[in-house]
Parts: sequence; C-alpha cells; structure tokens
Amino acid sequence: MATELEERFAIYAFNAGLLVIKLFVVAFSTGVVRGSKKVVLNEEDSKRKGMEMSTEEHPAVARVKRAHLNDLENIPAFLIISLVWIHTIPDIVECHVLMWLFTTARFVHTAVYAYYPVPQPARGICFIVGVLITLYMIVRNFIYFAQFF
Amino acid sequence: MATELEERFAIYAFNAGLLVIKLFVVAFSTGVVRGSKKVVLNEEDSKRKGMEMSTEEHPAVARVKRAHLNDLENIPAFLIISLVWIHTIPDIVECHVLMWLFTTARFVHTAVYAYYPVPQPARGICFIVGVLITLYMIVRNFIYFAQFF
Amino acid sequence: MATELEERFAIYAFNAGLLVIKLFVVAFSTGVVRGSKKVVLNEEDSKRKGMEMSTEEHPAVARVKRAHLNDLENIPAFLIISLVWIHTIPDIVECHVLMWLFTTARFVHTAVYAYYPVPQPARGICFIVGVLITLYMIVRNFIYFAQFF
Repeated sequence: MATELEERFAIYAFNAGLLVIKLFVVAFSTGVVRGSKKVVLNEEDSKRKGMEMSTEEHPAVARVKRAHLNDLENIPAFLIISLVWIHTIPDIVECHVLMWLFTTARFVHTAVYAYYPVPQPARGICFIVGVLITLYMIVRNFIYFAQFF
Repeated sequence: MATELEERFAIYAFNAGLLVIKLFVVAFSTGVVRGSKKVVLNEEDSKRKGMEMSTEEHPAVARVKRAHLNDLENIPAFLIISLVWIHTIPDIVECHVLMWLFTTARFVHTAVYAYYPVPQPARGICFIVGVLITLYMIVRNFIYFAQFF
Repeated sequence: MATELEERFAIYAFNAGLLVIKLFVVAFSTGVVRGSKKVVLNEEDSKRKGMEMSTEEHPAVARVKRAHLNDLENIPAFLIISLVWIHTIPDIVECHVLMWLFTTARFVHTAVYAYYPVPQPARGICFIVGVLITLYMIVRNFIYFAQFF
C-alpha cells in the first residue's frame, strides 16, 4: 500500500524526470544548432574542420541559450518548492493538475521560444503560468508550515 | 506535535519560498527594465511598438541579469545543501539564524547589485556570507553522515 | 543502525557537498581571472585601481563563465533526480559507483574546460557521462514510481 506521500512523490518523480529530460534536449540542441551555424566560442573547438572562432554566439544559438537560461531560472526553483509542497499532502487531483500543468507550460515555452518562434504573448503566458503555479505552492507551504512555529 | 525534523523543515519551507519569490522579482524586473529601455533580443518581440532589435542587452538589463545569474549560482545550491543539513537535526536556534541570515544576505545582494548599485565590498560581503553559510552546512553534513559509511 | 535510505542519503550528502564546493571554486575563479585581466562589467567596480570598464567579458573570464553555466545546467538537475533515485533504494554498490562517477565527470569537465583547455572530445565525454547517469536514474525512477499510480 502506497502512503499518501508516496503517491504524491510518484507524481513528483515523473514530472522532475520529464523536466530534466527537456533541459537536456535544449542543451543538446545548443550543440546541434551551433554545429549547423559553424560558429564556436572556444579556441580548441575551432580546430575542427570548417568551424569559425567568435566571441559572440550566432543569433540562432543565442536564442536557444536564452530559452535554456529561462528554464534554469524556473525549473530548479519549481522542483524545490513542489518537493516541499507534496509534504503538505495536497489533494491528489490538485497535485496532478498543478504538476502536469507546470510541465506542459514549460514544454510549450521551450517550443515557442527556441524552435518555432511566435510573437508574444505565447511565450509570456507559458512563463506566467509556471510562475503562478510556483507562487501558489509557496503560499500553500507558508500556510501549512506556519503551524510548526 | 511536530517532530524535530518537521520544525526544521518548516524553517526551510519559509526560506525556500522567500528566496524563490526573490528570484521571480528579479526575473520580472529584467522584463520591466528591458521595456523601459526599449531594446529587445528576439526578432518576434521587436514587432511591438517602439522596440528596437539588438544582439546585445542594454547595460541596465545586463546588470539585472548578472544579479539574477549570481542568484542561480548560489540559491539552488543552498536549497539542496540546507535540505540535507536539516536532516542532521541541527540546533533549532542555529537553524533559524543560519537560514534567515542566508536569505537576508541574498536579498541585500540583489538590492546593492541590481537596484541601488554601491561600490564594493557591499556586494562581495553578501556573496561571501552566503557561500560561508553553505560551506559550513556542507562540513556539518560531512561530519554527520560519515557515521553511515 | 542506519536504515537503507540513510546509507544512500549519506552518499548523496557527500556528493552534493563536493559538487557545490566545486561550483564555489569556479565562481571564485571567475573573480580571480577577472582581477588578473583587469576588465570589469560594473561601473562601481571600475573605480578600483587599474580596472577597465567594458560591456564584454575578457575571453579568459568568458571561458570560466561558460564552464560555470554548464555546471548550472547539469548539477542542480542531477542533485534533484538523484535525491528521488535514492528513495528507490538502489543497490548500494550501484549507488556508490553512479554518484561518484558523476561527481568525477563534473570535476574533470571543469578541469578541461576552465583550467587546462584540451581539444574535444574530452569535455564532451565528461558532459555525456553526466547526462547518461542522470537519464539512467530518471528511467529507474519512472519504473519504480509507476507502481504508485
């Protein structure tokens, strides 16, 4: 029999896994896009055939890197806050909805930022959804853990 | 009755929440400062009225981004190390002091870096305080967990 | 008597501590290299003797920063995934091997990226080893936690 915490930890484990896989996909596409644009930043890399040395990234590479940095600003923060939040034993349906919605928002954010650029507010909405879910969890954590002071 | 771990986990939950809220404030001010300077990096954003396209951030935006990056280098590391540390059941007063001192140092760091730039060593001292607290917790973790080998 | 989880948590505590110490070393070398190159980005820092103000980092500083950023893309993700993974109570030998191998790969990555640049694929191999270990843990987490749905 799974405990209440284990059930929620399982949801956490799946979402954490998918979000980190997404981080890796973006990290690898930096390399792939850089290879296709043939502009590198490290002198030792420029020795490879056809590579040009530069102090500035190609715009297409810089775009993927900005998407990646935005992930780094949001995903680790969410994974720490939501790990605390599942210890408050939230409603199981709410737990599913918020965790999967965050993950979906970040996947769409990456898609419309790094791969199929569309005008705002698509990217902004995805970013805000992620931030609001995290903020909601923080407030729930504050309310729940206040009892221990 | 709260267990000893729950009491410490509650302190952790509050500090983690405040630090992530601070991260979000800095993230939003990047957008606000960028809007006020009217220089954007993404072509799809430049279609908005009065926005100028550039490959380089405006200096004021670059400054907020550096403050943000410094947070990303320090806050997730602290939140992981301190999560391990509370499992060593440190003295409750020590736990309060170190956790709140770290959070205060990071808030002041952001203030003197991103919003009211003052000459060094103000920024450096805040950074060092955060690093020293994290290092102290790492050493305590090493001592405590050595018993399990 | 240590529980099975405590034994694995101890391995986690040691590796997390060493990886964060490494992050700090890289963070400090950014400052040291910047000091030796005498090029700063913040106006308030340029008031110190002999410092030149610039909007772009010196190449040697930019290199250390790229190594640091690569750490930030990989180490927090690993520390969250491996924290979940130890809750699946993996074989203790496997736990030692994978955790220490990841840490070693990241130490070597930093060495060959930031301090003793060598031509690829040295840096790439270290990066891939870290990614593969993290992906393996994610898959193990998926298999283990699927039972709770």
